[in-house]
Amino acid sequence: LNKNIPRVRRRTTLILLIIISFSLSSIFSKDRDKYIGITKEIVRSALTKQNGYEWLRELCEIGPRLSGSQNSFKAISWAEEKMEELGFDVWLQPVMVPHWVRGEKEEAVISESEFFEGRNLEILALGRSVGTGKDGITAPVIKINDFDELEAKKEELKGKIVFFNRSIDPAIVNTFQGYTDSVVYRLRGAIEAAKYGSVGILITSLTTKYDNVPHTGAMRDYVDSLPKIPAAALGYLDADFLNDALKKDPTLKVKMKLNCKTLPDTLSYNVIADLKGTEKPDEIIIVSGHLDSWDAGVGAHDDGGGCIQSLEVLDLFKRLSIKPKRTIRCIFYINEENGSKGGIEYAAYVDTTKEKHIAAIETDQGVFTPEGFNVTADSSTLIKMQSWLPILEYAGINWIKKGFSGSDISKIKNIPALIGFVPDDQRYFDLHHSNNDVFEEVNPREMELGTAAIAALAYLLSEEP
Amino acid sequence: LNKNIPRVRRRTTLILLIIISFSLSSIFSKDRDKYIGITKEIVRSALTKQNGYEWLRELCEIGPRLSGSQNSFKAISWAEEKMEELGFDVWLQPVMVPHWVRGEKEEAVISESEFFEGRNLEILALGRSVGTGKDGITAPVIKINDFDELEAKKEELKGKIVFFNRSIDPAIVNTFQGYTDSVVYRLRGAIEAAKYGSVGILITSLTTKYDNVPHTGAMRDYVDSLPKIPAAALGYLDADFLNDALKKDPTLKVKMKLNCKTLPDTLSYNVIADLKGTEKPDEIIIVSGHLDSWDAGVGAHDDGGGCIQSLEVLDLFKRLSIKPKRTIRCIFYINEENGSKGGIEYAAYVDTTKEKHIAAIETDQGVFTPEGFNVTADSSTLIKMQSWLPILEYAGINWIKKGFSGSDISKIKNIPALIGFVPDDQRYFDLHHSNNDVFEEVNPREMELGTAAIAALAYLLSEEP
Repeated sequence: LNKNIPRVRRRTTLILLIIISFSLSSIFSKDRDKYIGITKEIVRSALTKQNGYEWLRELCEIGPRLSGSQNSFKAISWAEEKMEELGFDVWLQPVMVPHWVRGEKEEAVISESEFFEGRNLEILALGRSVGTGKDGITAPVIKINDFDELEAKKEELKGKIVFFNRSIDPAIVNTFQGYTDSVVYRLRGAIEAAKYGSVGILITSLTTKYDNVPHTGAMRDYVDSLPKIPAAALGYLDADFLNDALKKDPTLKVKMKLNCKTLPDTLSYNVIADLKGTEKPDEIIIVSGHLDSWDAGVGAHDDGGGCIQSLEVLDLFKRLSIKPKRTIRCIFYINEENGSKGGIEYAAYVDTTKEKHIAAIETDQGVFTPEGFNVTADSSTLIKMQSWLPILEYAGINWIKKGFSGSDISKIKNIPALIGFVPDDQRYFDLHHSNNDVFEEVNPREMELGTAAIAALAYLLSEEP
Repeated sequence: LNKNIPRVRRRTTLILLIIISFSLSSIFSKDRDKYIGITKEIVRSALTKQNGYEWLRELCEIGPRLSGSQNSFKAISWAEEKMEELGFDVWLQPVMVPHWVRGEKEEAVISESEFFEGRNLEILALGRSVGTGKDGITAPVIKINDFDELEAKKEELKGKIVFFNRSIDPAIVNTFQGYTDSVVYRLRGAIEAAKYGSVGILITSLTTKYDNVPHTGAMRDYVDSLPKIPAAALGYLDADFLNDALKKDPTLKVKMKLNCKTLPDTLSYNVIADLKGTEKPDEIIIVSGHLDSWDAGVGAHDDGGGCIQSLEVLDLFKRLSIKPKRTIRCIFYINEENGSKGGIEYAAYVDTTKEKHIAAIETDQGVFTPEGFNVTADSSTLIKMQSWLPILEYAGINWIKKGFSGSDISKIKNIPALIGFVPDDQRYFDLHHSNNDVFEEVNPREMELGTAAIAALAYLLSEEP
């Protein structure tokens, strides 16, 4: 070994290698060839038939599916019928969901400025925002880069619209990391700005695409002790424009009018289909996505695609006559986007049922070419799953790592493994929560290869001790 | 260790682990942190500035760049000027290239049939095909699945158009593998069919996208002792249609008219730019793509993108003031698509120059999200390169394997390492050699992350002993 490595590190390396060799050894088990054979069959059927891609087309034709909307109920009915038509037992689990409506399209314009008066700005209200009233609000704008600057300038905020000009840092390779670093201004910007008397906020859209399509997304609950101020996202190019305009004319005023409001909570449903296990029907492996979407685009990647992949996992088993030992349960959660009520409701069910939940897979990062799986589990479970990589690589899986699994399944307590499907993430935030998230942006091979990868993992989870 | 593993396999595993540990050990070298720091800088600059993406837009605006065409010369001039503007020494290496022209758009129609008469078929002549003459050819069509069937039915082929109905098998995960399995009918179909008196061939486009856009590509040289018969690719949907039509009416006739021909060879150029090494200027690391494209689409992915990535590698070094020890040489080969004369000419130069070629990287699989590098080298070189993975993973590289590097660099003899950049391949054959290969199909983050990965590897190659 290289002399530059200190002794301790060498010992660590050796232990690591022993662990790796143990984990590799299990791939030589007698079932390995059988598992590889079945994985290849799954891949062949998914890529050749592309059934799920066609179902996603049908789902997207319904339109956007915001919780509580007419379309969301159409989508629930469509899902129920599709699952029954495919021959699965379906359960509509009731759940009360928030019902926020956008109303007429929002507007923003530079209403007072020597240079820019009359210039429209492309905006989209943030989900859960209050409206502005029919006269809108008109106020000067102050650009703020982060909460430290907000605090430093707190004396200057009264009566103003705070413009949080912070998109996703393009230099961060993992776009989910970049998103996580910046989403806090969408989540809490209106609450923080209200503390200092601001009358509204604008944020730069969280996007990796430099067009003018605004991206919405949820805000945190307003705080009752503070004024509830309206919040909207600017298209990236108009955010850039406003940034420059403020340099030339710091006194410009913007008028914005949002017509959104929150209606009383509505009864809605998680849609759940089971493929019963042959040996351990009460042991459950979940495959899942969320059926609701934002009301911009049609939620093709977020998360119609994840739902359909989950459903096609069941259908792949059925059409290939693969009989899993444990029950494979497909869940379309409702309301991931603005409340997570579906995930919370299902997790509450897990606490009370006699069924034993073994593992839950969530797909909510788009339906791009598969890369790996993020796992929340103890080390021995993780190592066991990593020993399946020589099988899963036939479905394009490169790695299995510890990591965040997914928003809906993370509500479930007392389950050995929570697993997030991770596809290529470079294009996801081009589309996310915007009019760019349309069916045409889904590539059937990418989607179906992902479906096959999830199906192969679900199969291994259902068979292994 | 698992008792099921025979002793020999256990020993092999142990040896393997020792090799891996040696290779891992080199990542602890004192330069590792420096290399990671520089890789991060490269990634940040590529993803933030996206210069290459804008240059690709300019290149694509010229239009398609088939060898010998006016556009190909415009592209050569554009490249020369861009390289000079960026501050590099430029060399136009002269090379004679074939000059095939399509002429007026080709036509095909079902000219005789009780059911389908008058139905047009969407076709594109294969590159290097002869034309049909101005009256076209009219003949019955026989569908053939493979060369075995061709041989079996050789008595039935005289006077007919052979329809090779074999696209890429969608079940094969690696689309390049699927393409390689089926491309032989495009390459040799017209030669094999001519042996038995066929008057022309149609092939189903080699595609993973089920639209009606035909995909062209090169044929092998005709054999002088056989008749030279015309060859064209059908759009996938029309191939499907023709397949079904032949079942209903096996006697239908197709008229096809191709206006293509081969003109005398033309003088053209490889375009070459150097960033001189500070310590070993005569040791060369190549980064490269091919500047010519087919005349359908604009060759955005194939291979305008690969050229621009190679050029931006040099510019990244320059704009980040990274001084490589060895010379980094960017080559835009001409004529990869229908003759490989550019690659052959450069390889001939390598044989005569006093410069020492250390490694050559080729990028010609599209500009999608990076996955890894294929390497042709001896085992110790490969293991050394694999020890760089903990650095290259900062630029999205998952693996380095033995494998085919690329068509142009494969002509170079006596070079320690030939390296092919491998991005996600699921979408490449949707576009390849067709009107689908346009600038709009390039995602800037995918492209620039690939550029950064290639730059990081070129840097390591230039620094390491």
